[in-house]
Amino acid sequence: MEPDLIRRLATPAATKVVLCVMDGLGGLPGPRGRTELEEADSPQLDRLAELGAVGQSIPVGIGITPGSGPGHLALFGLDPLRHEVGRGALEATGIELELGPLDLAARGNLCTVDGDGRIVDRRAGRVATEVTADIAGVLSAVELPGVELTVRPVREHRFVLVLRGEGLSAAITETDPQQVGVAPLAAEPLPDAVDGVRPDAARTAELVNGFVARARRLLEPREPANGLTLRGWATRPELPQLPALWRLRAAAVATYPMYRGLARLVGMDVLDAGETIDTQLAALGRHWEQYDFFFLHWKHTDSAGEDGDFTRKMRAIEAFDRALPRVLALEPDVLVVTGDHSTPATMAAHSWHPVPLLISGRHVRVDHSHGFGEGECARGGLGTIPAREVLPLAFAHAGRLAKYGA
Amino acid sequence: MEPDLIRRLATPAATKVVLCVMDGLGGLPGPRGRTELEEADSPQLDRLAELGAVGQSIPVGIGITPGSGPGHLALFGLDPLRHEVGRGALEATGIELELGPLDLAARGNLCTVDGDGRIVDRRAGRVATEVTADIAGVLSAVELPGVELTVRPVREHRFVLVLRGEGLSAAITETDPQQVGVAPLAAEPLPDAVDGVRPDAARTAELVNGFVARARRLLEPREPANGLTLRGWATRPELPQLPALWRLRAAAVATYPMYRGLARLVGMDVLDAGETIDTQLAALGRHWEQYDFFFLHWKHTDSAGEDGDFTRKMRAIEAFDRALPRVLALEPDVLVVTGDHSTPATMAAHSWHPVPLLISGRHVRVDHSHGFGEGECARGGLGTIPAREVLPLAFAHAGRLAKYGA
Repeated sequence: MEPDLIRRLATPAATKVVLCVMDGLGGLPGPRGRTELEEADSPQLDRLAELGAVGQSIPVGIGITPGSGPGHLALFGLDPLRHEVGRGALEATGIELELGPLDLAARGNLCTVDGDGRIVDRRAGRVATEVTADIAGVLSAVELPGVELTVRPVREHRFVLVLRGEGLSAAITETDPQQVGVAPLAAEPLPDAVDGVRPDAARTAELVNGFVARARRLLEPREPANGLTLRGWATRPELPQLPALWRLRAAAVATYPMYRGLARLVGMDVLDAGETIDTQLAALGRHWEQYDFFFLHWKHTDSAGEDGDFTRKMRAIEAFDRALPRVLALEPDVLVVTGDHSTPATMAAHSWHPVPLLISGRHVRVDHSHGFGEGECARGGLGTIPAREVLPLAFAHAGRLAKYGA
Repeated sequence: MEPDLIRRLATPAATKVVLCVMDGLGGLPGPRGRTELEEADSPQLDRLAELGAVGQSIPVGIGITPGSGPGHLALFGLDPLRHEVGRGALEATGIELELGPLDLAARGNLCTVDGDGRIVDRRAGRVATEVTADIAGVLSAVELPGVELTVRPVREHRFVLVLRGEGLSAAITETDPQQVGVAPLAAEPLPDAVDGVRPDAARTAELVNGFVARARRLLEPREPANGLTLRGWATRPELPQLPALWRLRAAAVATYPMYRGLARLVGMDVLDAGETIDTQLAALGRHWEQYDFFFLHWKHTDSAGEDGDFTRKMRAIEAFDRALPRVLALEPDVLVVTGDHSTPATMAAHSWHPVPLLISGRHVRVDHSHGFGEGECARGGLGTIPAREVLPLAFAHAGRLAKYGA
């Protein structure tokens, strides 16, 4: 649904909606011919499917494998092809570093360079996060004219660089050559289709190259982390804000920084949800009266899928299934269960396959499904719909969308 | 998928994809309540459906009956509503007459006119192709100022006229009145919405009328082929080129000129595939290592459907089914079987009905289908998708599309 139409039809109501996102939920048949979800012992989900309706969601488009960013933006009702969150912004978001309007962020890698400055290991032997944290402290002390500078560790060799100042531009090239045997590249301003190279891009590239030169000297004695590369230049993404758009109070109940950050980018309040499903459910219960919409994120399905561990992904689904009664006990008016993309254990990676979708609530047109699995969902009553239509559909079921036309 | 996104995500890989197009594959139930495909004894296709996934493709749009051009452009991943190949260009393509940037083509019909110049037979009694070839030679000798002129026979009374010169315009009317009892029309320039009648259109109409006047005198003694009509004015279509767009080597294995021509228009190499399925399969095997993507075209399903011959269409499906093991023996990573449109024998014509679709390969989410037929496909796991998404989906399964977003 287009934002203009949402603005016109969104209506407050005394209803509660819970969107459960099992990350990377969709799978492929394993050795016994059934997917992780089909093989899992998940009686709660099967019962919800039986009493509700199922279908499939397409996160970005047919054949397109989504990253976590686009997958979630779609579930938040946005068209991920129209709203892109650059890598630098996503990484910053992932460590709860909120970007301001003057900020320019990049994803950084520590790397190992030889005596001639050529990269010999693009990940610096995957140094410990503590080493990167220590180095980040050192690099944060670099001074650049007219710019505040922040370096923060992410994990292992990864870090985020944020420059804050007037007139910074993301229209510069990456310094990461994406291969070994060559030196990191200089940042160059990217010409604009209309104006050619703009002064702000030229100045930003110069600032970045100044930072890199000083950083190189500071890193020299720190082999294997004696070099760095920067990519994914991005300013703060301007995304539609869910609470204003839908006229409701929205909260995220997520444990991983990336998903907390994505929720924050669309205006949700991010609850203190601890580290486990128990603390997540406690947060949900504690804040139940304060919000109309809850985004409940479950990460472990995706991690297991990415690791190619079919059984662990199955177990992650079962763990979430066991937690469901505590969600249902709160009596949400509408409950949606889906994923942000598929992560089949057999592929050990995100994939383009449609994602199982389930909706449960009073006004759901109950279909013929007898369980929650890819096979049932492919023939489910909800059909196969773009993921960005899931939220409008849920809010419709919650009486939060007025009639269109007389 | 939009070309800009394809350019961004397309990734080379060491995988082979075969797109089998059974022309006019889709059908309607015959006397025994089952379609041509359902009634055919096609164990290979049924087995592929069982081990893979099925669905339906919509060539142009719901309710739209496609010609061969739009049907194939969609299967080549293009939106046939955005990319139109004019009739003249399609006919030229069909006889392997490659249009250049200065060319203007029309489809011509020889016709019979009476003493007053009025059409009495729009097809000149369907004169033999040899007669038309002879006449084409005579008409090619007509001289026009500043324009090179080519006339080539197609089949029976049909021919192609190509004018080559600077400043020719397709914005002129057709001379075919589409009825008997009236004389062929003069070509008139079509006004442009912005500029009115442009000089190039006026000049082109004048040139065409000059050609027609001289042709009339040359044809006078050749009754029944003593007149001609011209329609479908078209310049060379500018279509995205598959190999550059998808970063792969693409080849067409087709016996009919029209399909060879359509493949050439999107940049495929057209292999010497002989005249039969045996020579087609031999060509496929001979060139297997040289290409990443093969378009294998099977014409006889459509011809039988157009003739309203249910049994012959069934047999054409069975003949293709028997050939499939030789395709499978090459071990393609992804195999797609579909059609460019439906041609139900009960209608003896192309139709708007969705087209059966089958995809087979390692990462296919196997669905519950037990055979390849319209009924199974309507409920298949791939759903009902636009035909232009079939190629991106195939390439996704072949590991040729990178992840979108981080």
